[in-house]
Amino acid sequence: MTTPKLAFSVQEYETRIAKTRKSMEAADIQTLIITDPANMAWLTGYDGWSFYVHQAVVIGPTGLPLWWGRAMDGLGAKRTVFMSHDHIFGYEDIYVQNPEKHPMQDLARLIVAQGWQNTRIGLEMDNYYFTAAAYLSLVQALPEATWADANGLVNWQRAIKSETEIIYMRRAAKIVEKMHATILETATPGMKKNDLVANIYHAAISGADGHWGDYPSIVPLAPSGADASAPHLTWDDAELKVGEATFFEIAGVHRRYHAPQSRTLFFGEPPKKYREAENAVLEAVAAGMAKAKPGNFAEDIAIAFNSTLNKLGFEKDSRCGYPIGLSYPPDWGERTYSLRKNDKTVLEAGMTFHFMPALWLDDGAIEITEPVLITETGAENLCNTPAQLAVKG
Amino acid sequence: MTTPKLAFSVQEYETRIAKTRKSMEAADIQTLIITDPANMAWLTGYDGWSFYVHQAVVIGPTGLPLWWGRAMDGLGAKRTVFMSHDHIFGYEDIYVQNPEKHPMQDLARLIVAQGWQNTRIGLEMDNYYFTAAAYLSLVQALPEATWADANGLVNWQRAIKSETEIIYMRRAAKIVEKMHATILETATPGMKKNDLVANIYHAAISGADGHWGDYPSIVPLAPSGADASAPHLTWDDAELKVGEATFFEIAGVHRRYHAPQSRTLFFGEPPKKYREAENAVLEAVAAGMAKAKPGNFAEDIAIAFNSTLNKLGFEKDSRCGYPIGLSYPPDWGERTYSLRKNDKTVLEAGMTFHFMPALWLDDGAIEITEPVLITETGAENLCNTPAQLAVKG
Repeated sequence: MTTPKLAFSVQEYETRIAKTRKSMEAADIQTLIITDPANMAWLTGYDGWSFYVHQAVVIGPTGLPLWWGRAMDGLGAKRTVFMSHDHIFGYEDIYVQNPEKHPMQDLARLIVAQGWQNTRIGLEMDNYYFTAAAYLSLVQALPEATWADANGLVNWQRAIKSETEIIYMRRAAKIVEKMHATILETATPGMKKNDLVANIYHAAISGADGHWGDYPSIVPLAPSGADASAPHLTWDDAELKVGEATFFEIAGVHRRYHAPQSRTLFFGEPPKKYREAENAVLEAVAAGMAKAKPGNFAEDIAIAFNSTLNKLGFEKDSRCGYPIGLSYPPDWGERTYSLRKNDKTVLEAGMTFHFMPALWLDDGAIEITEPVLITETGAENLCNTPAQLAVKG
Repeated sequence: MTTPKLAFSVQEYETRIAKTRKSMEAADIQTLIITDPANMAWLTGYDGWSFYVHQAVVIGPTGLPLWWGRAMDGLGAKRTVFMSHDHIFGYEDIYVQNPEKHPMQDLARLIVAQGWQNTRIGLEMDNYYFTAAAYLSLVQALPEATWADANGLVNWQRAIKSETEIIYMRRAAKIVEKMHATILETATPGMKKNDLVANIYHAAISGADGHWGDYPSIVPLAPSGADASAPHLTWDDAELKVGEATFFEIAGVHRRYHAPQSRTLFFGEPPKKYREAENAVLEAVAAGMAKAKPGNFAEDIAIAFNSTLNKLGFEKDSRCGYPIGLSYPPDWGERTYSLRKNDKTVLEAGMTFHFMPALWLDDGAIEITEPVLITETGAENLCNTPAQLAVKG
């Protein structure tokens, strides 16, 4: 048996499972089917680009988790999960993308073989990769089971980071600092956007301070000028221009742990409006950060941020932050709490979030955002990248 | 109104919609809700990294498609879709990742506002991003509708590529050729894997022959040695070693069109088993390619490939290919036919697939794979990368 290269101690995985089981008990769930790749990784160590086929980790009433997926990916499970090989189950290739045979029929057989078919089973109902067909197929194949929505159940267990997780996020923070430094060093007017993104990727994957870069769960977003008024457009070969702002919404990643950070670059003299937006964002961020401490609510940060922003003549109608950590495409957020009004999540030391005060203006945008760690007494910015609007040329 | 930068003529989009409507009629579907990002892009031009929130394109009984998604992404829709702005509908940010409010409630209101609530509505039941919760929320909110599984309906319309699509795929093929050339040029024993992947990304995004590189729907897979016995592991900072094989499963991408191609690199003298595997794969691929022509079935390629492979003492129990073209993460396949036994899909000129004869050996793997275009008379390899096992050092 190959020894897998675990990112965490077996004890840490066991603690995570115990914590999850406690939460299952509170929700009266005996069997939990996990399809979120980040939750699968957090519970077992599994790491592979196989989430384009159906797969799951199952936590039953007793014992260690089971890994279940396409047979060929069972080999990857053997090389990455902490459980012994008899906890790994693969389905035949004929189930792959075959309208006649849904893989969940095979998972149902596994549940029956374990004797868990008449338990109350929790499902991540709104998770990417748990499709409507997967749900219907499973429910049909397990008529004796009862069902519960366990969406977010494991995500919430991940909210407070362990010491090792924080180490990985600090490494990721150094990587994103290097990525922003690379942008400042290499971006020039007339440069094609894709050539700049190539440099960003090179910096991201080569890593920083001797720590390797993993792939980000969202590709670098780097729109310029009017394109930047839309938040999620990707690049093409348009040239960088004098008189235009470009925002860079990027993340450094180490062992799947993300540190997202955004900055805005202006070639030439920024118009007054950009300077005003910069001042407003920085002042509003400071007001938000003053509320970022254990015992406060997530909404406290948002309320302080938004009221300061409004006072300075700007508005933001979307949430200003979300939790971060371990993740897989298509999202680097953890999808639990949000920094927005009415979110009464109590902040605790070890929580990490992306403070995301992006302002979309009529003809562009300004993004100056940070990965933040809640400490025992307040909050720490994981990065040291200078916070102002970057100006060049 | 901004003029969007369309990748295709409006006429081409209209042709696609007409073709899709015909297929809807055949399936007795009056309203089609499309959640696959590639299908959304193919029908409307929409392009953005926003598929981590719920979004859709809706084709009703009459008129042009409607784009629906998060309000902030409506701005991206305005900059990328061919329809006028009154076809773009955004939902409020409070619906984002909020367990109390599912965005599909908003989509249901849009369907009602259009008067389509008592039609038969097609859904992509097994598509990524169409979750169990999205399905249940929609069905509950539209009690008068009847429902049909339209999974793959639009994917099938995409099987035969247009002239412009083939141009984009040829550009992508040049990019992946350059990526493999970069590997051969820069890989050395002792190099850290992530540093090599950084070079691969740089080559991929900077592009080739003056055409920019887009992001691949699957990250570069580049496992070495025993890790290569598992197909979908991603990189770390392990060093490349003499006496080990590394396979590179990578794609060049231009305007979301993919040309995937894999090669295997060996440092030092490859063992006899690798040479035998190389010979077997190349001979089996030649046998498969001889069957790749209009009028034959998809399975004909697989049967010729597998029988030749078996004759030479090797086995592959997974499919040996799948259609390719426009795609978004997590998969660069089109998810319609497969190159495997019993797939009676008739090959036609303009079809494109990834001929994927990967062989996983006990202690490693050999991958020599190609993007292929079915022509009027046979098949064309879109790339010219030398086919053999690459040997260096």
